[in-house]
Amino acid sequence: MNKPILFLFLLAVFQMNARNNPEIVTMYPGIYKISMGQTDQYTPFSICKIQPKAQALNAFENKNEYVKPGQIRIETNERGCLVEIPLSSDEQLYGFGLQIGSFMQKGLRKQPIVNDHPLNNLGFTHAPQTFYVSNKGYGILVNTSRYTTFYGGTLQLKEKSKTEVKTSEEKIATTTEALYASESSGSNMLVDIPGASGIEVFLICGSDLKEVIEKYNLLSGGGALPPMWGLGVKYRMKGDSDTEDVKKMAAYFREKQIPCDVLGLEPGWQTKTYSCSYVWEKKRFPDPELMIKDLGKQSFKVNLWEHAFVNPASPIHDSLMNYSGDYQVWNGLVPDFLTKEGCRIFKNYHKQNLVDKGISGFKLDECDNSDLAYGSGSWSFPGHSKFPSGVDGEQMHQLFGSLYLNTMNSIFREMNKRTYMDYRSGNLFLSAIPATLYSDIYDHHDYIQMISNAGFGGLLWSPELRESASDIEMIQRLQTLLMSSQVVLNCWYLQFPPWLQYDKEKNNKGEFLSNANELENSVRTLLNERMSLIPYLYTAFANYHFAGTPPFRALVVDYPEDEHVFRLDDQFLIGSDLMAAPFYDDAKQRQVYFPEGVWYDFRTNQKYQGGQSYTIEYISEKLPLFVKEHAIIPVAKPVLFVNSATVFELECRVYGEGMAKATLYEDDGETYDFEQGNYQWNTLSWDGEKGKILKNGQTRTNRYQIKSWNLIK
Amino acid sequence: MNKPILFLFLLAVFQMNARNNPEIVTMYPGIYKISMGQTDQYTPFSICKIQPKAQALNAFENKNEYVKPGQIRIETNERGCLVEIPLSSDEQLYGFGLQIGSFMQKGLRKQPIVNDHPLNNLGFTHAPQTFYVSNKGYGILVNTSRYTTFYGGTLQLKEKSKTEVKTSEEKIATTTEALYASESSGSNMLVDIPGASGIEVFLICGSDLKEVIEKYNLLSGGGALPPMWGLGVKYRMKGDSDTEDVKKMAAYFREKQIPCDVLGLEPGWQTKTYSCSYVWEKKRFPDPELMIKDLGKQSFKVNLWEHAFVNPASPIHDSLMNYSGDYQVWNGLVPDFLTKEGCRIFKNYHKQNLVDKGISGFKLDECDNSDLAYGSGSWSFPGHSKFPSGVDGEQMHQLFGSLYLNTMNSIFREMNKRTYMDYRSGNLFLSAIPATLYSDIYDHHDYIQMISNAGFGGLLWSPELRESASDIEMIQRLQTLLMSSQVVLNCWYLQFPPWLQYDKEKNNKGEFLSNANELENSVRTLLNERMSLIPYLYTAFANYHFAGTPPFRALVVDYPEDEHVFRLDDQFLIGSDLMAAPFYDDAKQRQVYFPEGVWYDFRTNQKYQGGQSYTIEYISEKLPLFVKEHAIIPVAKPVLFVNSATVFELECRVYGEGMAKATLYEDDGETYDFEQGNYQWNTLSWDGEKGKILKNGQTRTNRYQIKSWNLIK
Repeated sequence: MNKPILFLFLLAVFQMNARNNPEIVTMYPGIYKISMGQTDQYTPFSICKIQPKAQALNAFENKNEYVKPGQIRIETNERGCLVEIPLSSDEQLYGFGLQIGSFMQKGLRKQPIVNDHPLNNLGFTHAPQTFYVSNKGYGILVNTSRYTTFYGGTLQLKEKSKTEVKTSEEKIATTTEALYASESSGSNMLVDIPGASGIEVFLICGSDLKEVIEKYNLLSGGGALPPMWGLGVKYRMKGDSDTEDVKKMAAYFREKQIPCDVLGLEPGWQTKTYSCSYVWEKKRFPDPELMIKDLGKQSFKVNLWEHAFVNPASPIHDSLMNYSGDYQVWNGLVPDFLTKEGCRIFKNYHKQNLVDKGISGFKLDECDNSDLAYGSGSWSFPGHSKFPSGVDGEQMHQLFGSLYLNTMNSIFREMNKRTYMDYRSGNLFLSAIPATLYSDIYDHHDYIQMISNAGFGGLLWSPELRESASDIEMIQRLQTLLMSSQVVLNCWYLQFPPWLQYDKEKNNKGEFLSNANELENSVRTLLNERMSLIPYLYTAFANYHFAGTPPFRALVVDYPEDEHVFRLDDQFLIGSDLMAAPFYDDAKQRQVYFPEGVWYDFRTNQKYQGGQSYTIEYISEKLPLFVKEHAIIPVAKPVLFVNSATVFELECRVYGEGMAKATLYEDDGETYDFEQGNYQWNTLSWDGEKGKILKNGQTRTNRYQIKSWNLIK
Repeated sequence: MNKPILFLFLLAVFQMNARNNPEIVTMYPGIYKISMGQTDQYTPFSICKIQPKAQALNAFENKNEYVKPGQIRIETNERGCLVEIPLSSDEQLYGFGLQIGSFMQKGLRKQPIVNDHPLNNLGFTHAPQTFYVSNKGYGILVNTSRYTTFYGGTLQLKEKSKTEVKTSEEKIATTTEALYASESSGSNMLVDIPGASGIEVFLICGSDLKEVIEKYNLLSGGGALPPMWGLGVKYRMKGDSDTEDVKKMAAYFREKQIPCDVLGLEPGWQTKTYSCSYVWEKKRFPDPELMIKDLGKQSFKVNLWEHAFVNPASPIHDSLMNYSGDYQVWNGLVPDFLTKEGCRIFKNYHKQNLVDKGISGFKLDECDNSDLAYGSGSWSFPGHSKFPSGVDGEQMHQLFGSLYLNTMNSIFREMNKRTYMDYRSGNLFLSAIPATLYSDIYDHHDYIQMISNAGFGGLLWSPELRESASDIEMIQRLQTLLMSSQVVLNCWYLQFPPWLQYDKEKNNKGEFLSNANELENSVRTLLNERMSLIPYLYTAFANYHFAGTPPFRALVVDYPEDEHVFRLDDQFLIGSDLMAAPFYDDAKQRQVYFPEGVWYDFRTNQKYQGGQSYTIEYISEKLPLFVKEHAIIPVAKPVLFVNSATVFELECRVYGEGMAKATLYEDDGETYDFEQGNYQWNTLSWDGEKGKILKNGQTRTNRYQIKSWNLIK
C-alpha cells in the first residue's frame, strides 16, 4: 500500500503548484473560457449537441468587463478545485438554475445539485445550474457536472480581518432571526468543486444583465422556438385512462368549446411502469394508431409520459444491458446516454414505435434524483454508480436529465418536426430545446418565482393546475399558468377537469361542484385569453431564438439598476412589452410595482406612472397583465387549437399616443425550416392615427389578418 | 500537466486491485475492525480521548455473529471507498445518530452529515453518526469523519435481476404515495465514502441489540455519569440578563419552592458575541465571582453559554492565530482542536478564568453547521477550509462538536469534578461525556422520537421548554422533558418563566396569564416528581457507565423481536423498569403499547397485560410513566436542589406480588472518584411481605434513607 501513497504525495506536490495561472481563451467577444488542470471529458457544455449561434455572438460589441478574466483565480489541490471570483458590495446575483424558494442569491450558500425536492435554501432543484449572473453585467458559469458549492460573499478569510475589533455597542440578540442575521461581508464568490482535477469557468460579459443572458442563450444555440400549437393548452389525462376516456375528454373540449391542443397520457398507456416498457397496454389502448389518427382529425396532439428506466419487459432492455449503469432503478436499467449505442437504441425504438406513429412529444419524468420519496426511501441510482462511459453516479445525476432530453429531442429534430416536451430535470445549455420543466411541488408563490428564476438560465418553467381548495385558488392558479411558457392541466390523478371539481377525492367520485358550470365558463374565458395572446407569445419566442432574449424573465433583467426590483419575484416580463403580476394566496388585491415609464392595465386600460407601486384589484376572468407605453399588442380572436391552417384575426392595441412600432414573427409553426431562413418578421406600425402591417420578406403562411387597430390613451 | 495524470492513472491501477481482501482485527470479543487502504489520521475513534472499558468488553461471551467480519466487503477506487454489508429482509435497522424525523432506518438513504437543520430524511443532524444497529444483534460503525451516504437496502445491482420480469397485474398508481412506494428489495447496505483512500469499519456483535449498544458504549469508555445535581432543573436566563435579573430569578425559585439546580447565562455575559470574547461584560456583571459565590450559597450552579469562534477582542485570539482554520466565522477564529497547542490555549483560558472561578459547566453552541440561517445565508466555515492539522472543512465539520466537547470536558476531568454540559453537535464515541445535545427545532413529536434515537448511539438528548400556545401544550412539553436526560427551561428569549406566560411577546411585556398561579402550582408538582425520581435516574446512569446500558432507549432495544415496537418512536424506556409514554399535540388520550409481561400505571397503579395496546388518559399533574411487574421504584421526597449534603428520603414502591429486587447506586455525586472504586451498589430487596436495603460495600455517603415500603398489587 505504500506506492499509492507515494504517488498521492507527488501528485499533491504537483498540484500544489498548479495555482495562480489559469489559461484564458476568448470564445466570442466578451465570452472567456478560463481553465486549469485536467478538466472532465463530460461537462454540460461538452454534451450539448446544438452549436452556438456564432454569428450573433460575434456581432456583440461590448466594452463592459465588470469582472475581467484575469481576476478569476483557480486553485487545484488534493481536495479538488476552488474558484474565486471578485464580488462587489453593490451588486446583486441571480440564477443557479430553477431555484425554488430563493431569488436574489447573494449572501447565500448554494449547492446546485439535482433533486426533486427543493429542501429550502440548499440549492437543490430539478434544474441545477452552476451559473449565476450579476446585475452589473456579467455571468459566471462553472462548466462541471460535479457537485459544487457556491459561497456568495458569505466567507471571510482569516488574514483579512486579523485586527478588526468591532467597537460598536454590542446588542444582545434575543430572537433567532437577530442571532443569525447575515452580514454578507465577503468580497468574493468562492466555488468549491471537490473531486475535480481541473476546471473550466466561462465568464460572459455583456453591456447589461439582459445581454449576458442573451449571450448565454446564444451560446446554447439560441432560445427554443416551440411549435405554435405548443403555446395552446395541454390536458394530461388521469393515469389509468383508456381509449374511451380519452375520446370522451376530447369530445368534452370540442363540444364545450374549451381550447385544447394536446392530450397527455400518463403511466397507464404502458404495459409496465415503474420502470417503463414503452409498449402500449392493449387492454386500455387496443388500437393506439387509430386513436391518434382520430384525435388528429380533431386537431389534438398526443403526448406520452415516460421515464428513462427500462423495465425487463421492454423490447430494448436486453440490448441496453451493456450500455447502462451498474445499478437498477425500480428494477429497470439506467441507460448511459453518453454512449452512442445506448442513445441510438433508445432513440430508434422511440422513433419507430411512437413518434413515427404520430406521437407529438413526451413528458420525461423522474430524470432527477430524490432523497425522500413519500414516507419511505429514496429512489434513483447512487452516487457511486459506474457507467460504461466512465462517469460516476454523481456526474450522471447532474447530466441525466439533459442527456435524456437531448436524446428525445434529436428524434424530432432529425425529422424536421418541432415538439414541445415536458421534462423534470435538466442542467445547462438547454435553451434551444423546446421543452418545459415541471415539478411535483405546488406552492403558488414558488411557481411564480420559478418563472423568473428559470429565465436567468435559458430554462422554461411550466407551473400546472391540479387540485385546489377554493374557486379563487383554482382561478388564480390558472391565471398564472396562462401567463407562463406552457399551459398544463395536469390531471394525472383526477377523473375530471378541476373546474368541475377541484377537490381530488370528490372529483374522482364524480361529485361536481354546484357552480361547476359557472367555473367552466370562467375557465373558458381565461383560456381564450391565452389563445388570443399566441401571436404575441410566439413572437417573444422568436426573439428568444434569434436574439436570446428570454420570453419570461424577472424585472431585474430589463431594469438592472432599479433597486425596487432586486428582490421582486412575483412579477415578471413577457416578451418585449407585457408585465405579469399574478394574484395568489386568494388575495383580492396586491401591490404591483411599475418600473420607469408609463404603463397600462391590459384589463382596464388604466394608466400608471412608473417608478412606484400601486394597489391593483383582482379580476377573476381577466389576466393581470400590464403593458408598456408605445407598445402594440396583437390580440387574436381565440381559436380552439392551432394547426398549420390556423389564421389569427388580430386586433392591434396601441398603448399611448404618438408613433409606435412592434414586430410580429411568422413561420410555418411546425418545422425547423426557420433555421434555413424560412421565416419573416412583420412590422406593426402606428403613425399616431392609423396602423399598418409591413410584411417583410416573402409571406409564407399568411398567418395573421389584421382586423382592427385600437388606440388606448 | 501530464505527470499528475500519469500518476493518477497508476494510482487508479493500484487501487483497482485493492479489492476483496480487507484486513480483519479482533478488538474485543465480538468486536472486529475491518479495514482496507490508507485510512485517515483523524477519525471519530482516533480523536476519542477516553479509553475503552476493556475489562467489561473482554467479559462478554457472545456466539451470535449474524453478520460475520468476512462478509463485509470494501472496495477502494478512484472515487473513494465503498463498503458492502449483508442485509436480511427480516431485520430492522436503527441509529445514524440523533436522527430527526425518522426512526426505523431500513429502506432509507441516509447521509449522516452535521447540520443544524434536519431537512427531512436526508440524515442531516446535530449529531451525525456513521453507525447503525440491527435488531438481529450487530452494529456497523464506519470510522470516518468524511461525508458518507448509507443506502440501506434501497439499491439493486444490475446483474441480480437481469431476467426478472414482474408478471403480476400492473396497478397504475394515481397517488403520489403509491407512485413512490418503496419496495426496499436490496439485500445489502452500501456505504459510499467519496474522497477516502481507505476505510475502517467496526463490526460489533452482541447476543442481542441491547448488548451491541452496551458494547459500543463501553468501547466509548462507558456511559456518562452526570453529577447528581445535573439531574435536577436547569433554568437558562434571557440573553440580555444582568446580575440583578439573575438574583431575582434565584430568589423566585427558592421563595416559590420550585426546584432548580442550575442557572444558565446566555450570550449577554460576554463583552462580544457573535463571535465570542469569553470575557465578562462588566456593565451587566460587575462582579461575577461574587455573584457565583452568592448563588452557590443558595445551592445554584452557574452554566455559561458560548461557542468556539474566537472574537478578535478575546484575550486568546492572537495566540490562536496559528492554530485555527483559514476562514473566520462571524469574524472569529475557528480553533483547530486537533492541534495540541490550540487545545491547550482554549482550555487553559477557560479553566483559569471561568472554571476556577466557580463555573459548573458550559453550553457549547453553534459547533454544528448551517445551510440556512433564518432568511439569509449560511454560517460556519466552508468544506474547503484548511486547518493546521491537515484536515479539510468537511472532516472538521464532522469532528468539530466532538473536539470542542472533548476539550471542555477535559478541564473538568482533570480537576476531578463532574460537569453536565449542553452541546449542539457531536459525533461518535461521546457516550462517556456528561453532556446533553440540544437543538433549535421544537416539534414535540420529534423531541420524543429523538430521545429514542439518541439512545442507539450513546447520546443524551435534551428537549427543552420555551414558548407554547396553550396550557396543555406547555404542560405536555414539560412532562416530556421531565422524563428525559436533562430538564432545561431554555428561556433565552423570555423575561419570565413560561408558566407565568408562555406567549413570547406577552412574556417579555410582563403580561402574565390569568391562571399563572395555578400553572405555577402544576409546574411545581411536576418538577417535584422529577426530583423524586433522581435516585432511580442516577442508578440508571450508573448502569450506563458500568454496563453501557442507555438510561433512555427505544423499546426495540429491550424487545428486539416484538414487531409492535419496530416503529414505536413515541414511547421509551427509562432505566431498568420504567417506560414513558409522553402525551403530545394536546391529546387527552393516547394509545400505549405494553411489551410482554405485566405493567402498572405509575400514576394510578392500574395494571396492564403486556403484548397489547391500551388507551391511556392524560393527567396534567402526573408523569405518564409505567412500571414493570416485580420492579422496586425508589421514590424520593422531593428536594429543591441536590448538593453533597443531600439525603434522599425514599418510599420504595414494589409492583406486583412475590419477591422483588432492585439496585440503588451511590457515590459522592460530584467527583470522578467512582472510577477509582469509590462507589457502592445497594440492593433493595422485597421478600413478598417486607423490604430491606442491603448496603453492599462501605457506605460512603448515606445518601438514601428508606422511609417506607409499599406494595402495589
